[in-house]
Amino acid sequence: MDLKDFEKEIGYEFKNKELLKTALKHISYAHEHKQESNEKLEFLGDSILEFITSKFLYNHYINLREGEMTKVRSSVVCEESLYKIASKHGFNNYLYLGKGEQGSDGRNKTAILADSVEAVIAAIYLDSDLEHAEKFIIDNLREAIDFSTKNVGMKDYKTVLQEKLQVHGTVKIEYVLIEESGPSHRKTFVSEVKCDGKVLAQGTGYSKKASEMEAAKKALEVLK
Amino acid sequence: MDLKDFEKEIGYEFKNKELLKTALKHISYAHEHKQESNEKLEFLGDSILEFITSKFLYNHYINLREGEMTKVRSSVVCEESLYKIASKHGFNNYLYLGKGEQGSDGRNKTAILADSVEAVIAAIYLDSDLEHAEKFIIDNLREAIDFSTKNVGMKDYKTVLQEKLQVHGTVKIEYVLIEESGPSHRKTFVSEVKCDGKVLAQGTGYSKKASEMEAAKKALEVLK
Repeated sequence: MDLKDFEKEIGYEFKNKELLKTALKHISYAHEHKQESNEKLEFLGDSILEFITSKFLYNHYINLREGEMTKVRSSVVCEESLYKIASKHGFNNYLYLGKGEQGSDGRNKTAILADSVEAVIAAIYLDSDLEHAEKFIIDNLREAIDFSTKNVGMKDYKTVLQEKLQVHGTVKIEYVLIEESGPSHRKTFVSEVKCDGKVLAQGTGYSKKASEMEAAKKALEVLK
Repeated sequence: MDLKDFEKEIGYEFKNKELLKTALKHISYAHEHKQESNEKLEFLGDSILEFITSKFLYNHYINLREGEMTKVRSSVVCEESLYKIASKHGFNNYLYLGKGEQGSDGRNKTAILADSVEAVIAAIYLDSDLEHAEKFIIDNLREAIDFSTKNVGMKDYKTVLQEKLQVHGTVKIEYVLIEESGPSHRKTFVSEVKCDGKVLAQGTGYSKKASEMEAAKKALEVLK
């Protein structure tokens, strides 16, 4: 399989292609070919994933207590949700596996696929910077985080703003995308939040939703 | 106690003093005074600590396998070693504790002190950036990491370089500090490694030892 397709799929183009290859090399393949496996990258990637998810929860969700944040983090940063990311992007087509693992359908083993996602996160970080790794993580985990926070009854800024504005009756709340700039792999979005036509605040982010969340956060500060 | 003394002690001056205060507020105090406790900062700080330690191990130690890195990380990022950091910097003099905890000598409880170190790490990060948090972590954990890696038989770059250079007999290996620049809270060091008077490589780092380690790493690359 062509790694270029994989890069397109994950939305990141590597400067150092060897780093990407290493991230996809399972220990069984590495042993057979006397090459480096993705285990050390996985070790590093796991800690990046924990940090970025923690930072995201800390910055984007209010009304949450430490215990709930811990609960959400462990429900999001787990083998199952990493496996989903791997499946979505077809990691199984690009993994380097040893003959033994290929025979036992290792290509689809949950753990191997989940680990390779962590390794790819570290590879993106080492190839560029934390911001690029963060983008990959949040793009891919956003839905799981939203789902999990709703499950424990957390509210994000948009929900809190809506509740605050509608406390005395219905108002019209709109989010308008007013700017989209930068290269395709690293676009920046600016959104505005309006209440009954009046602009409350603007927010910037690496996705439309992130910019809206930021706008809601700023509006809440203004309204305080 | 004056928080200025605490800032001097930890080598970081806060722009936002409230953030520092929050980092020092135990839940018992926060409950009594209806203020925010340091629990959420602790949640974030823990993940920063894991990431920075993982990154340090990944970047600075060779000859290590993933299992050993995990072992070192958990021996270094633990209550005991965080408690040591808290004790060294006199955190107990600056903690805000509720009356109950004060009565039961909470001020010195290992867990409370260890947690407050994680909260301070997050506070430094939020007040400035990851680099400042990294500096605090590495300055304070360096010794524990060195000790722990030696325990599992890992070798750092300086040791590996020494072994490589002396394989055919004794040579004189010197590390010379050739530059020290930047403000006192964020100095940069440049060191040179020499073998029998001949310069092999230069390295840059945020401590003298880090710059020597980097020089050794580069020398190993040159010698390959």
